Amino acid sequence: MDLGGTKITTAISDLTGDIIEKTTLATGSALGEEVVMGRIFDSIAMVLEASGIHEEEVRAIGIGAPGPLDAEKGMIITTPNLPFKNYNLVKPIENRFGIPAYLDNDANAAAIGEYTFGAGKGTKHMLYMTVSTGVGGGAVLNGRPYRGNTSNALEIGHMTIEPFSKHQCNCGKFGDVESLASGTAIAKRAKEAVEAGKDTLLSQSETLTSYEVHQAYLEGDAVAQEILDTAFEYLGIAVANLIVNFDPEVIVIGGGVTKIGDLFFEKVRESARKRSFDFMFNATRIVPSQLGQETGVIGALALALIESAEK
Amino acid sequence: MDLGGTKITTAISDLTGDIIEKTTLATGSALGEEVVMGRIFDSIAMVLEASGIHEEEVRAIGIGAPGPLDAEKGMIITTPNLPFKNYNLVKPIENRFGIPAYLDNDANAAAIGEYTFGAGKGTKHMLYMTVSTGVGGGAVLNGRPYRGNTSNALEIGHMTIEPFSKHQCNCGKFGDVESLASGTAIAKRAKEAVEAGKDTLLSQSETLTSYEVHQAYLEGDAVAQEILDTAFEYLGIAVANLIVNFDPEVIVIGGGVTKIGDLFFEKVRESARKRSFDFMFNATRIVPSQLGQETGVIGALALALIESAEK
Repeated sequence: MDLGGTKITTAISDLTGDIIEKTTLATGSALGEEVVMGRIFDSIAMVLEASGIHEEEVRAIGIGAPGPLDAEKGMIITTPNLPFKNYNLVKPIENRFGIPAYLDNDANAAAIGEYTFGAGKGTKHMLYMTVSTGVGGGAVLNGRPYRGNTSNALEIGHMTIEPFSKHQCNCGKFGDVESLASGTAIAKRAKEAVEAGKDTLLSQSETLTSYEVHQAYLEGDAVAQEILDTAFEYLGIAVANLIVNFDPEVIVIGGGVTKIGDLFFEKVRESARKRSFDFMFNATRIVPSQLGQETGVIGALALALIESAEK
Repeated sequence: MDLGGTKITTAISDLTGDIIEKTTLATGSALGEEVVMGRIFDSIAMVLEASGIHEEEVRAIGIGAPGPLDAEKGMIITTPNLPFKNYNLVKPIENRFGIPAYLDNDANAAAIGEYTFGAGKGTKHMLYMTVSTGVGGGAVLNGRPYRGNTSNALEIGHMTIEPFSKHQCNCGKFGDVESLASGTAIAKRAKEAVEAGKDTLLSQSETLTSYEVHQAYLEGDAVAQEILDTAFEYLGIAVANLIVNFDPEVIVIGGGVTKIGDLFFEKVRESARKRSFDFMFNATRIVPSQLGQETGVIGALALALIESAEK
């Protein structure tokens, strides 16, 4: 189950990750805890029924949700788009269906998904990084999900890489990765350039996105090029810092901003190479996510598999 | 065995880490590979003989040495102060004494030492950081040494935290932790201040150290205060980045610069708090090394214990 603020996507798969049935319901967050919990139950019951698979045949349920949450306790701490506060999500599901359930945050679930079925397959130490509205991540180290002490490891977006920057993150800090190189930061820099009256193809639009900045870049717009190149350089610094700290085999990068494609990966790699050691950089593959749009639900399926196998 | 460029310290302990016998020999690095290997053999034979313990009663030999090295293969890659190049150090020791041997770099061995016998005892996720001439580190995650893909994880000193700094590291990079906040960096900033004719108690001495800067600090010297406060702020940023990435229970900090004591830990904690999240910062203890001078040899003993227990 990929439990989001607007929709709940639940799928049932075999042990190789092949999806047998999938269903999507509106979360109904505004309607409160009980309604959402009801829809969670409904979505599980629906895929079971549609697939004709009996509860006793199901090994585990994996749930990916926005953090912060406590993966060990199966508890959502608090999250802006869901009505749960310090709420144990796992117990009611286990009681209702008699199937072991596991909760993890989206980014960890995505990391486990890429490790099990995607770009991290066959590795031992893998990091996952998502560059989207925000910047986040997850890790599989020594072949096991690594979450840290409070289940919040790999908060890559909140690593400080330009401490005296004027750019401030939503979290309040200055010069962390998210403030400098997220989709939000790219759009913000573009809006600032437009407002400053710079000579650019970028539009006055309130909804300016990193996608438009990329389009202007491709048309040779110098302002757009500087904005994206700067963001890619900072992302490369973040990647270099992950390399020297974690010494991983592979860093899988997903999220909306990576849709820019080759240009993104070339520039990020170039910056990361300059800021790490050659022998460590050369030992680390930096590759795009393979799961793409399906990351959420496949991550949750992989979570169910890996956690139930560990028990 | 703590194998250094100038001396080899070898100790034999019981399973609780209590040292029974210890011996120190000059390494004789300048005399080449064979001589050093001979002294390594001698030092092991000497502690065995002095302790009256027979080879068959010894569970394992742990060796801490300067990196880069390949811990998995037991091989020293290259290191400026030892004559070994791509040299398997573990095999000849195992063949000679019939005891399983394990090699790791100093910083990892220190991490394992603090985890087993020192400030990290009883934790699950622990980081070790050393602030000395250079800045380095090691990790124990999920109760096991974490080394990464090329055995070089936790190269904390080479994490970039001020990418457009004018300060350059020996490794060539600008604005990494070592270039901004190591003992070497502190001494360099002090020399620069003296040369620039600043009004300071700091001396013209060629051998100016971070210790002298601390003395001047305590006497109210404004130049010394600015130099140390800046270094501590950068170290706090490094610590904050470790917190958001690893989400550890404890970060143990050792090395010469930490002899400054409470002032060091107060300032580093203050900076780290500002650059991380409160709930993660509050869940992370930041504490001094407990092994101090003995870190090298106790780390090697802990390495022998933890690795032989895992097999």
